[in-house]
Amino acid sequence: MDVAALDTPVATVDLDAVERNIARMQGYCDEHGLAFRPHVKTHKLPALAHLQLRAGAVGITCQKLGEAEVMAASGVRDILVTFPIVGAEKAERLAALAREVAVSVAADSAEVARGLSAALAREGVVAGFLVEVDTGFARTGVQTPKAAAELAELVDALPGLRLDGLMTYPTLPGSGPILRAAVGEIRARGLEVRVVSGGGTPTFFTNHEVPEITEVRAGTYVYGDRSCIANVSVPLEDCALRVRATVVSRPTPERGILDAGSKTLTTDPAEEAAGGGHGLIVEYPDARIYALSEEHGHVDLSACAERPEVGEVVTVVPNHACGCTNLHDRVVVHRSGRVIGCWAVAARGRLR
Amino acid sequence: MDVAALDTPVATVDLDAVERNIARMQGYCDEHGLAFRPHVKTHKLPALAHLQLRAGAVGITCQKLGEAEVMAASGVRDILVTFPIVGAEKAERLAALAREVAVSVAADSAEVARGLSAALAREGVVAGFLVEVDTGFARTGVQTPKAAAELAELVDALPGLRLDGLMTYPTLPGSGPILRAAVGEIRARGLEVRVVSGGGTPTFFTNHEVPEITEVRAGTYVYGDRSCIANVSVPLEDCALRVRATVVSRPTPERGILDAGSKTLTTDPAEEAAGGGHGLIVEYPDARIYALSEEHGHVDLSACAERPEVGEVVTVVPNHACGCTNLHDRVVVHRSGRVIGCWAVAARGRLR
Repeated sequence: MDVAALDTPVATVDLDAVERNIARMQGYCDEHGLAFRPHVKTHKLPALAHLQLRAGAVGITCQKLGEAEVMAASGVRDILVTFPIVGAEKAERLAALAREVAVSVAADSAEVARGLSAALAREGVVAGFLVEVDTGFARTGVQTPKAAAELAELVDALPGLRLDGLMTYPTLPGSGPILRAAVGEIRARGLEVRVVSGGGTPTFFTNHEVPEITEVRAGTYVYGDRSCIANVSVPLEDCALRVRATVVSRPTPERGILDAGSKTLTTDPAEEAAGGGHGLIVEYPDARIYALSEEHGHVDLSACAERPEVGEVVTVVPNHACGCTNLHDRVVVHRSGRVIGCWAVAARGRLR
Repeated sequence: MDVAALDTPVATVDLDAVERNIARMQGYCDEHGLAFRPHVKTHKLPALAHLQLRAGAVGITCQKLGEAEVMAASGVRDILVTFPIVGAEKAERLAALAREVAVSVAADSAEVARGLSAALAREGVVAGFLVEVDTGFARTGVQTPKAAAELAELVDALPGLRLDGLMTYPTLPGSGPILRAAVGEIRARGLEVRVVSGGGTPTFFTNHEVPEITEVRAGTYVYGDRSCIANVSVPLEDCALRVRATVVSRPTPERGILDAGSKTLTTDPAEEAAGGGHGLIVEYPDARIYALSEEHGHVDLSACAERPEVGEVVTVVPNHACGCTNLHDRVVVHRSGRVIGCWAVAARGRLR
């Protein structure tokens, strides 16, 4: 079966492009002696996690414990959860998971460390712990090298936790100095820092410029999207995730309406350099998806010499692959348009 | 069990508030002699569709054929699909559905009408057809009363289709004149217009000011959201859908991080009058969710006298209820916090 025969809207994944993306990122890591721990938040597919591991990844990264549980159930043996795990219920689930596979976590507070330690110790298991350091993104993360060292010291003293090192997101041009200072402060207290984990697709190829970093995480690279094209991390031809959509209305000569709106493409914006709008129509690059209703994509065709008619199917590269696949229960996987299968996005909707 | 005992993030639905919202909208329709056909795109729950029908709705509205199939399977007997159904595969599914329940569709082109007619006639069944008229929103819809009449005449002549009348979205202050003219043009051709369907929550209570309108559709009203508060269609106390989220990091005195980001709350913006941001934190109304990562809600607490600590659970009214529930496989339904059940969002993810 060819993807052209699929009813729309449908999310398709080009497995050849996925393999190219995996090879490129793994190749960079191998070249620079960096461990690679891909983030599965983008694809949420066990099969792609295993592709990434077979290519050389040391393990995977998840953002939710529920994602980690799905991946562990699929046979993945080494999982880092880079989101603060808070509360007794999740701590208990983490402990149960840590009995089955190698688990590590990242967090930025004593509250989180103590909560996890209690549950892990009760279960008699150990999870690795990375102290999250804010190196400029201003999201989570301790604010100073001293705070990093204090939390590291606490973690080292807590049962059930093994101090592994540091984590930051994303790797930024300025990430080096604070990571270096934090490593120094921790070592000055007689503790080891085995892992310094950086991350993010847009700045992926700069990780080797921050010599403290030993391991990198990235998710979006596996599919690419309109943001990746704009930030030059993945070229258009390697954008593996595309949404096939049908023109369902041509109410005016300038306007076309697609059967893909915010519930199919996501309202997530693209990086500014992408030029606004809600996705790239591959066959009509001069068209502009200027607005989304929930199920309608509103397309301005005024700049197009040729214009699609009602019934024509077009291919959209979404703004943000992670937000897009999260809307799809299944993706159709293909090579050169030939359908391999319709895969359940197994870790989708695992909010907890 | 109380909702306070639920692990987070979790979407909760206050059934008392839902019933108040249903009663208010149905009451308005009854008062003004309007038929009410609620749009299930917001809740996607069979149980709520049946609540709406029991309250007096004449049928339901769906945006996707797959939603209609789920609702029909749950026992709903009268369904309007207000999205152009394009392509042989969907036309065949519509015909199969029309054999089981009363089905009608809305569209704005001869292409769509002819495609549906062929499949319906082959199956020996009939679907109602509403000509969609653009009355100012500039999305789908024929552009002139004459075009409406021409499409109506075609539909009347096509086997398998029954001309029911006109549809527009949303009902706007200026919707009246073009609807009146279209009705006139159609009647001048000797055809009947039994139904003129208007829609939309924000302008719901203005439908009686457009005397052509016989039937109204609305979806968001059933849950309410931050946009509804801003456009004064649903008050805060009747906002039935809320996301319980935990503070997982307090990296600075001014910043809090929630375990609910774009994959839990949606990046859909609220109406402008809501004041920007990504949701209202009920317990901290002076807090501002100023950014969303996929799993992180970034909260500015600088305007708050009291500030939540790590581990505290807060309640968020999302910007856009429809985009939010679409992210959740299940919602926890309660009355006054007492959990009734955890309901599968059965029609979620039915993109086709």
